[in-house]
Amino acid sequence: MNPSDKQKCLSAVNEALQVIGSKWAFLVISQLYYGPQRFNQLRRNLSTISIKSLTDILRHLEHYKIVNRQVYPTNPISVEYSLTEKGREYREVLFQMRQWGEKWGSTPNE
Amino acid sequence: MNPSDKQKCLSAVNEALQVIGSKWAFLVISQLYYGPQRFNQLRRNLSTISIKSLTDILRHLEHYKIVNRQVYPTNPISVEYSLTEKGREYREVLFQMRQWGEKWGSTPNE
Repeated sequence: MNPSDKQKCLSAVNEALQVIGSKWAFLVISQLYYGPQRFNQLRRNLSTISIKSLTDILRHLEHYKIVNRQVYPTNPISVEYSLTEKGREYREVLFQMRQWGEKWGSTPNE
Repeated sequence: MNPSDKQKCLSAVNEALQVIGSKWAFLVISQLYYGPQRFNQLRRNLSTISIKSLTDILRHLEHYKIVNRQVYPTNPISVEYSLTEKGREYREVLFQMRQWGEKWGSTPNE
């Protein structure tokens, strides 16, 4: 692999790594894969996540254009989150990770 | 996804995330995919990596059974690193990441 290919390859994988940052990123993406959800729906479905963590992870995923945020002019306003196309295609990365993890995943110190 | 499936799924993806920890993990795995290498070969091929970083990443990958370390009784002894089967199969995860990153990888603040 010549240096410039290596650099291109590295930044591509880096980009993918930036997205997954925390376990919640994976769970939020998996939730939204089944359709858009409002904040409180997500909170209920991700039962143990705090408001702050959910707010942070949604902002993180929005920043990386994985999630789209739609505000509806209801009273009070309601906000709906959905996966962008970029987000939907990230699921293939997660699927590969899950398959590999399930096959090889015995934690070394077990 | 019921709670126990979710937990199984999460720990599988977590396992995959533990491995990739740093950019060097990806580059070391990519290097060893083409065959076993000795420490100094790896250092030359990963030109900008420090001895400490390479030592740490090889120990990390060995701990997660991604890399196998073979000591030869030469004088001085020589040590050769190679991918385990678990390591070879991790490449599919990296390949998916790379594909996704190359397709969608424009850094948001560009």
